[in-house]
Amino acid sequence: MASPIEVVIMAAGKGTRMKSKLPKVLHRLGGRALLGHVLDCAASLAARRVVVITGHQAEIVETACAALVASPIVSDVAMDIKFARQEPQLGTGHAVLQALPQLSDDGVTLVLSGDVPLTQTDTLMALLAECDGQRLALLTLKMDNPAGYGRIVRAGDQPSSQVSAIVEQKDANAEQRKIQEIYSGIMAVPTRFLRQWLARLGNNNAQKEYYLTEIVKFAAEDGVAVVAHQIDDAVQVAGVNSPVQLAELERAFQQRQALRLMEQGVRLADPARFDLRGSLSCGQDVEIDVNCVFEGAVKLADGVRVGANCVMANCSIGEGVVIHPFTHIDGETLGVSVGEGSLIGPFARLRPGAQLGAEVHIGNFVEVKNSILAKGAKANHLAYLGDATVGERVNIGAGSITANYDGANKHRTVIGDDVHIGSNSVLVAPVTIGQGGTVGAGSTITKSTPEDSLSVVRAKQISLAGWQRPQKNLKSGA
Amino acid sequence: MASPIEVVIMAAGKGTRMKSKLPKVLHRLGGRALLGHVLDCAASLAARRVVVITGHQAEIVETACAALVASPIVSDVAMDIKFARQEPQLGTGHAVLQALPQLSDDGVTLVLSGDVPLTQTDTLMALLAECDGQRLALLTLKMDNPAGYGRIVRAGDQPSSQVSAIVEQKDANAEQRKIQEIYSGIMAVPTRFLRQWLARLGNNNAQKEYYLTEIVKFAAEDGVAVVAHQIDDAVQVAGVNSPVQLAELERAFQQRQALRLMEQGVRLADPARFDLRGSLSCGQDVEIDVNCVFEGAVKLADGVRVGANCVMANCSIGEGVVIHPFTHIDGETLGVSVGEGSLIGPFARLRPGAQLGAEVHIGNFVEVKNSILAKGAKANHLAYLGDATVGERVNIGAGSITANYDGANKHRTVIGDDVHIGSNSVLVAPVTIGQGGTVGAGSTITKSTPEDSLSVVRAKQISLAGWQRPQKNLKSGA
Amino acid sequence: MASPIEVVIMAAGKGTRMKSKLPKVLHRLGGRALLGHVLDCAASLAARRVVVITGHQAEIVETACAALVASPIVSDVAMDIKFARQEPQLGTGHAVLQALPQLSDDGVTLVLSGDVPLTQTDTLMALLAECDGQRLALLTLKMDNPAGYGRIVRAGDQPSSQVSAIVEQKDANAEQRKIQEIYSGIMAVPTRFLRQWLARLGNNNAQKEYYLTEIVKFAAEDGVAVVAHQIDDAVQVAGVNSPVQLAELERAFQQRQALRLMEQGVRLADPARFDLRGSLSCGQDVEIDVNCVFEGAVKLADGVRVGANCVMANCSIGEGVVIHPFTHIDGETLGVSVGEGSLIGPFARLRPGAQLGAEVHIGNFVEVKNSILAKGAKANHLAYLGDATVGERVNIGAGSITANYDGANKHRTVIGDDVHIGSNSVLVAPVTIGQGGTVGAGSTITKSTPEDSLSVVRAKQISLAGWQRPQKNLKSGA
Repeated sequence: MASPIEVVIMAAGKGTRMKSKLPKVLHRLGGRALLGHVLDCAASLAARRVVVITGHQAEIVETACAALVASPIVSDVAMDIKFARQEPQLGTGHAVLQALPQLSDDGVTLVLSGDVPLTQTDTLMALLAECDGQRLALLTLKMDNPAGYGRIVRAGDQPSSQVSAIVEQKDANAEQRKIQEIYSGIMAVPTRFLRQWLARLGNNNAQKEYYLTEIVKFAAEDGVAVVAHQIDDAVQVAGVNSPVQLAELERAFQQRQALRLMEQGVRLADPARFDLRGSLSCGQDVEIDVNCVFEGAVKLADGVRVGANCVMANCSIGEGVVIHPFTHIDGETLGVSVGEGSLIGPFARLRPGAQLGAEVHIGNFVEVKNSILAKGAKANHLAYLGDATVGERVNIGAGSITANYDGANKHRTVIGDDVHIGSNSVLVAPVTIGQGGTVGAGSTITKSTPEDSLSVVRAKQISLAGWQRPQKNLKSGA
Repeated sequence: MASPIEVVIMAAGKGTRMKSKLPKVLHRLGGRALLGHVLDCAASLAARRVVVITGHQAEIVETACAALVASPIVSDVAMDIKFARQEPQLGTGHAVLQALPQLSDDGVTLVLSGDVPLTQTDTLMALLAECDGQRLALLTLKMDNPAGYGRIVRAGDQPSSQVSAIVEQKDANAEQRKIQEIYSGIMAVPTRFLRQWLARLGNNNAQKEYYLTEIVKFAAEDGVAVVAHQIDDAVQVAGVNSPVQLAELERAFQQRQALRLMEQGVRLADPARFDLRGSLSCGQDVEIDVNCVFEGAVKLADGVRVGANCVMANCSIGEGVVIHPFTHIDGETLGVSVGEGSLIGPFARLRPGAQLGAEVHIGNFVEVKNSILAKGAKANHLAYLGDATVGERVNIGAGSITANYDGANKHRTVIGDDVHIGSNSVLVAPVTIGQGGTVGAGSTITKSTPEDSLSVVRAKQISLAGWQRPQKNLKSGA
Repeated sequence: MASPIEVVIMAAGKGTRMKSKLPKVLHRLGGRALLGHVLDCAASLAARRVVVITGHQAEIVETACAALVASPIVSDVAMDIKFARQEPQLGTGHAVLQALPQLSDDGVTLVLSGDVPLTQTDTLMALLAECDGQRLALLTLKMDNPAGYGRIVRAGDQPSSQVSAIVEQKDANAEQRKIQEIYSGIMAVPTRFLRQWLARLGNNNAQKEYYLTEIVKFAAEDGVAVVAHQIDDAVQVAGVNSPVQLAELERAFQQRQALRLMEQGVRLADPARFDLRGSLSCGQDVEIDVNCVFEGAVKLADGVRVGANCVMANCSIGEGVVIHPFTHIDGETLGVSVGEGSLIGPFARLRPGAQLGAEVHIGNFVEVKNSILAKGAKANHLAYLGDATVGERVNIGAGSITANYDGANKHRTVIGDDVHIGSNSVLVAPVTIGQGGTVGAGSTITKSTPEDSLSVVRAKQISLAGWQRPQKNLKSGA
């Protein structure tokens, strides 16, 4: 049986180059904190325990961590998460030392970094397999240009050849500088060894810091094998130290997601202009035009077509729905649902609690909030439906509005089946429009109306002949 | 005189990796089916006949094919199009065999693939020139990394050296594997030879398929020259087998179009954020800002400026018009026309049948459908004009609406020259506002009004002193 | 003390390949004329004088030049700008000759080109340091593929080795063709030498033109050292001759700006989808989502978040403001200001003179122009506020409009603190709504209202039972 995995995540650093008040590991990539990605990774490995090393702004990081674990992306496994404070910060070895009291000798410690968000689970599985509960296993990267990085010196030239040392750039001889394999900062180490080795770490160097990499030497001294799992995908071990690096990894992450969706059959008009910050579940024959942004949890059923420049969050879109360009949907915590065959947009906005039945039409400059629209209801132009219940086949005229707010409280508007609301009408809630009824254009309806009736609020039309409009006042501006 | 060209298009494959209900060759690139691009190419070669080989979902492909030929992009030449069913699919040689009964021995057969959309006409012209009615001519590609592809073995090292064989990767010796020239899948062959050679094809191979490439051997046996036209632009012979490849070719296609427009003088703010799915005709000094999408047939006259994030389809835009950002225009089959010097948007929507004269202003949150606006008319804010005829210099106030739909039928609104419509008015069609007239703000006009009159529908304004607004109900939510 | 700098800018060429009526040097990059960038560069060098050589469309270029100098981006140093006409255009040497009468022998002449916009100031400073008032200094570029360019032949192989000749491609021997260093077209030369050398220029060549590069030969003859400052950033010396090149440099320029902002701490979701045409000043922790465009002078205070697809110009946005997607702001010359903690959009438009206090909410399909909104005012849906003064905590109902235009003049609407305006109301200016007042939904208010009153304009609601809506007319279309 494999050794239990315990993950140590470095998250104590200051991140000065981010030039931000926010702790570095809480900066978001794909809509989720960097640290959240690393926690998700730990969860996907079914780690027995996670110890997060905090330091700078420790309380903020710890609070955020708890929230991130409570809203996992990858799995719903409950995670045992602990914190260890590192104050002051005296190097990577010193950081892991703070976690030791919470780690058990029967396990393997996997050292990750809270600012390295894109390591793949299968990469770490392979690293842990190399470790196998008895070896020190380093994740290494093959680089075209390794200048400046610590080189991996191997005892042989096979992928399985043991590692004899990590040599820093300044200490490397000419031969060693040609080595293209570098240490990534990620390792897996049997905890029983780690405990012994950390006790022997020194800080006899210019920075007076305790370096975790020194344990490679101790492993050699103790006759413990040091092995490496080498990858060549630099993105997986890239850290975020600046907004430039954050933007680079954001694009790499989005590209990865776009590729995954396309492999599932989703048609993206331009994978370089696609942003997903959350989860996107797509049926068959889904088409997504350029420059769309998806956030939170979005579901698109078979045959959904999303037009250019849409922003969609927290919503479920039914089969065959067409979302025209410039549509903004955000269900937040209440969600938004759109029934099959509906047509939405352009320039439509669906807000939390919009529940649209099948074949509903929501057109341009229309906002729907916390409202239920039954099958076939239509609001095609310049309308606001808030806190409304709208029956089947109802037609909401252009410019019509449910006045749901009396200045203090919100009230509901109920519109029966087959009602037609004339243009520029106001329905002052609470009010009910009886089924089959018609509201004349321009009416402000304050009292409920009977079924099958025509309800109107309108003064008499008068015309004053020969009326002269005001003339341009020369002193006035335009 | 050159031999008549007969084109055989392979379109029988299943396209499993597309993971779509739609046949692969009907997936769209630049808004047009892949097969449509290949048909356009055949049309541009003035092919005497086109035979499309169908198989999977043959009826759907054949129906679509007829529609594609009926709406050509490249030319309006009537094309003689036939279909040949290949069932089951036993290889490329077997596919072409199905077409043979429809091909004549006086011609040259050009074999194309329905999922290879971006071959240029001049490339095929050069290939046909190599064929010259008497040789087997292969279109070949020079690749940096040809691993896995069938190599072109030549009898010499000149561009004109004859081809002696196509050697598959698995059959190639070390020397042959260094060859960077590969077969593209496209060939031109005198039909009289093709007929003889196809009769001799065998299927003595692992897949038990009949390979068209075997005819190279027969040509050698018969003393017919085999020649190659080599290109190095991989995009021209790239096939679409997956959504990833479709997206890659879409970008290559858009880049090609952007380049062509810029060479004509069009200024694109970012060629990588430009999408044209149809035809775009531009006058001099046209400027197109980032992230615009053009569909159908769009004409932009001299000096038109299109702002960021516009979506424009099936419309004709006059000289000097400024289209502000976030404008959505789609004329569908009726078209949209905008007169010179007009200002449109931001956040404007012009729908089918919008015919705007010169110097018309359509502002934010305004929709125009099936309406004629004369010179100098303005609707600057939050308005809906549907089925309206609007005179010169008319001003449509903010929030005003033509109520064109009585719940069953559409009616027209006619507004004379120099009319001013007050804010939040409704004009209930059918209705006419006499020229020079004014409609008071907030009026719902149901009867036609006289010229030069002020028409108002309005109750008396009252004020109740000391009125107390409802107080926040603590039980109610927000 | 360093010699005074006098800058000669070549701006006489026709720019045929731009295919434009606009002179080439007036085409815009990053929103500013190419020539403007070069003038900014001259200003940042504190040039004593600038002489612009004009020819094709000289008057247009000269007028534009004056305007560009009057609205500098880089500095507010007054610049002494002169023009010299070159008619006809007989080569680069002939061009500089036209400027000579305006240059003084105590200075150094820096020759720049009006269509080379992205040369960095520090590059030119380094070039001028090489010149040092006594040498001919050439700006050179190291290229991977120098074919076709004039090669720099050096007397040695050190960066400091003197230049012995510029050899054109056609005159270069095999060894010289291997040289990767080429002349950029930019040089600094002591004016006293320049004057002598220009007098000796001949036009004994195929084009019968006077080439400025010939002075390298004269320098050698006169024993004046010729030195080079070599760079490898081709963008800095790239010229614009076609819309394709303009688009390439536009992207390079935007990339440069995006990088600079990210280094300051600004978080850009996608640096490749960011456009700045003017100046953008950002506080700490500013986040800008994909596909935003900034124009003119924009200030974003600490913690501002700008959503996807926003277009913002000439505005100042307060601390912590959230700009939702699809927001369009343009303050033009009047400016727009948004107070701290405000929420704007989506689909909002702020126009010139919109002055929003703290915590103002402007929601979807709302337009604000030339209006002052006090702290906490809200207009969340489908409204137009033009020429209005709005008090604290005012709520503007959905669909409400200030009718500021009587068909001839604009008038103001004044709304007191704590007023609630019901939905679909019209406030016909000039009008004042007394503080604490309420306007009933659907009212058209033409007379000022008292404080703390409920004001309504509304007819009686009636219902006609058993009313039958019009039936579908079969002859009518939809």
